[in-house]
Amino acid sequence: MTRIAESTVRRLSHYYRVLEEVEAEGGRLISSHRLAQREGITSAQVRKDLSYFGSFGRRGLGYNVVHLRHEIRWILGLDRRWRVALVGAGNIGTALLSYRGFAQQGFEVTAVFDRDPSRVGQRVGDLVVQDVSRLAAVAAEQAFDMGVIATTLASAQQVADALVAAGVRGILNFAPRKLFVPAHVALRTVDMAVELESLSFALSQARGPRRRVPGRGGSGGGR
Amino acid sequence: MTRIAESTVRRLSHYYRVLEEVEAEGGRLISSHRLAQREGITSAQVRKDLSYFGSFGRRGLGYNVVHLRHEIRWILGLDRRWRVALVGAGNIGTALLSYRGFAQQGFEVTAVFDRDPSRVGQRVGDLVVQDVSRLAAVAAEQAFDMGVIATTLASAQQVADALVAAGVRGILNFAPRKLFVPAHVALRTVDMAVELESLSFALSQARGPRRRVPGRGGSGGGR
Repeated sequence: MTRIAESTVRRLSHYYRVLEEVEAEGGRLISSHRLAQREGITSAQVRKDLSYFGSFGRRGLGYNVVHLRHEIRWILGLDRRWRVALVGAGNIGTALLSYRGFAQQGFEVTAVFDRDPSRVGQRVGDLVVQDVSRLAAVAAEQAFDMGVIATTLASAQQVADALVAAGVRGILNFAPRKLFVPAHVALRTVDMAVELESLSFALSQARGPRRRVPGRGGSGGGR
Repeated sequence: MTRIAESTVRRLSHYYRVLEEVEAEGGRLISSHRLAQREGITSAQVRKDLSYFGSFGRRGLGYNVVHLRHEIRWILGLDRRWRVALVGAGNIGTALLSYRGFAQQGFEVTAVFDRDPSRVGQRVGDLVVQDVSRLAAVAAEQAFDMGVIATTLASAQQVADALVAAGVRGILNFAPRKLFVPAHVALRTVDMAVELESLSFALSQARGPRRRVPGRGGSGGGR
């Protein structure tokens, strides 16, 4: 398959969701115009994106909804299950386990790890938290496809290294830190804390300055 | 206060997290070099970012950890509570309510809405799900600072419009759709589905083509 740009993959996610909607409403055909809707994408871009995967549409008629949804589902790898190791059984980790969309998209958490002795042995959902030192041993049994990092900032890189050593091919990172992984491992980051803080920053601007800024350039010079 | 770029705000989030760590470890002073650590930021960038807010550091000594953390906490608006209306009591919505980090960062969900009659009246956490038609009336009582959209793609824009009409100044959107809001409303998006699909796409590439691509250009032309 041709190398597909990340931006194309993200648009495919969008098309997939529109197709799900239209299929649920009973629609059978969809135009490139409708697929482009609301995303600031042109119809021409839609047709170009879909042309990578063969010719799904018929000029003037549009695309077959069920067929195109199945094709994109396959392209995005949503037709299979991925075995996932979750590292970090704190706030985000337990919220993720309760997020059914995660499993619905094929990401099946088959083991949970934490380094905190007070969490190890606890039950979360259907799983029992294991000590993170057992990661390699459990990976040898379960052959994880990917790992989810929901640990503190401080241990995130160490956990990423352990997951890579355990053979995962993808990492979903919820720790607000840039991680380094080898080129053969896919890394995606969901940075909820940064979005929240960016929002509270924006909302705070209305209240005006706390005090007068006591001059510029103390330790770093002006702008 | 000077207009601060979004990229600066995101770096402040990072500095804040490093400061929390260092403070927890008992550190009292921190260098711009340590603050820059691992984010691909230069020390000069750190000093420039912090100079917007006055002179916190002393050359050669570094920044006072407690003082700087408090300043950034205030700048990011993390020192106060925001009243939040959550719209959508499905998978993401209920996971969010169980995510304690949300409340810890000052975002207090004070009302939950859904349009699904089977969900209205149900208890989630400490709250009872209300019909989304009551949004304006409840907003008049509670004066929400912001809204969280955890609905389906189809209703997300309508919910955003209702939240704006109800007077929120910020929206955190979990629906995988581009939303339109007036300039005075801050909008941030956490697109977990797209990250997940991008990851499953990357992992799927190893398995090779499903079948031969039946030619290019059917409906949209090749590249």
